[in-house]
Amino acid sequence: MQLPFFYETILPQESSVLTVSEQTSKHCIQVLRMQLGEKILLTNGTGWLTEATIITADKKRMAVQTSVAMYKEPATIQTTLAISFVKNPSRIEWLLEKATEIGVVGIVPLICERSEKTVAKSERWDNILISAMLQSKQVYKPILHKAATVKELLAVPFSGSTFIAHCLEGTKPLAQYLPLAAYRRVLIGPEGDFTRAEIATATDAGCLALDLGQTRLRTETAGLVAVTLLQHH
Amino acid sequence: MQLPFFYETILPQESSVLTVSEQTSKHCIQVLRMQLGEKILLTNGTGWLTEATIITADKKRMAVQTSVAMYKEPATIQTTLAISFVKNPSRIEWLLEKATEIGVVGIVPLICERSEKTVAKSERWDNILISAMLQSKQVYKPILHKAATVKELLAVPFSGSTFIAHCLEGTKPLAQYLPLAAYRRVLIGPEGDFTRAEIATATDAGCLALDLGQTRLRTETAGLVAVTLLQHH
Repeated sequence: MQLPFFYETILPQESSVLTVSEQTSKHCIQVLRMQLGEKILLTNGTGWLTEATIITADKKRMAVQTSVAMYKEPATIQTTLAISFVKNPSRIEWLLEKATEIGVVGIVPLICERSEKTVAKSERWDNILISAMLQSKQVYKPILHKAATVKELLAVPFSGSTFIAHCLEGTKPLAQYLPLAAYRRVLIGPEGDFTRAEIATATDAGCLALDLGQTRLRTETAGLVAVTLLQHH
Repeated sequence: MQLPFFYETILPQESSVLTVSEQTSKHCIQVLRMQLGEKILLTNGTGWLTEATIITADKKRMAVQTSVAMYKEPATIQTTLAISFVKNPSRIEWLLEKATEIGVVGIVPLICERSEKTVAKSERWDNILISAMLQSKQVYKPILHKAATVKELLAVPFSGSTFIAHCLEGTKPLAQYLPLAAYRRVLIGPEGDFTRAEIATATDAGCLALDLGQTRLRTETAGLVAVTLLQHH
């Protein structure tokens, strides 16, 4: 996929004419100086990918002729990261970018008893997920779920392995939980860790206590380490 | 280690009086408003840790009475990250922080044929390593080695497993290289990957071609994913 790669919410599956977003138009025509007849790739972030040829080189309302869209099956391993967001906005954005690059399918802002208040920036965050998806040449955009407490999250039926990485006794390295189910979730707590009550709730719900190593990791680092391990086992 | 934790280049092993750095003094007295008789922890970043009691509460030249220093053996797994630094300084700094948190023992700025020029900020980078070491409650500061080309790096004798993560054919997931030696190194290339010549040099030197997954990772993300996997196997 060496052609310029863009995101469009709505993508025709059949070959047809499409007027792309102003953002994509501007990037192609003004930034990349693309000309009539040049090709780009488009994805809708739900597995569909299509090649498109510029037929109207307008920097606000560029029109393209799309070819028949191809569907890419989802990856076998489906990892969801449920993590207590940190106060520092740049650390949240960094986490969203890296988790997307590594290939998580979903992110759940976890509301823990010790979580700091954070301001949701849904649109900005969504743009980060889109850029990271395109950057890492993927056709699936992770789903940013609505924030939930540990209890709320675990109340929703989930068929797969759910882990909780906490700092109390009883955690084990991932190797001791192999083989894993295809669907995987990990819960990462705030600075100051989950409360004993939250850990009890998780344990009662069947969460597996995960050890992330010898060093004390920042919340966002723990999230990245956990998804890396889950994606690679 | 719940006491405030600081770095001092020189740490007495026997109990004695020590005048700490202006930075530590300022942080204890001015920021934390610590008083005479309060305790802190000090490490020199090479395995030594000591508890110290404030005996002169001076915000520029604070004096402490140290107790006998304790030595912590190095971790069994010793991972070194050799990575082509990226142009964006904040991404380099982020990488240094995260690699330290995850527990690498060394970082080598790799000069690749396709590397972009980067400005070395040794002092600033060293401070990032120190903060990350303290933040993650470690007593070993990673060594930031001098920049080297692939050839230069591999010319130095190294008894352990060396991996190279490239985007050409022939890479395998880490699982296929188990068990690993205690000493591990991974080479991460620039945006645009290593050249075929660099990969040939590495392969001839016995480097193992490592697969970091299905998604295309940014350089700094590839570095983090690689050290996470090496630290956890």
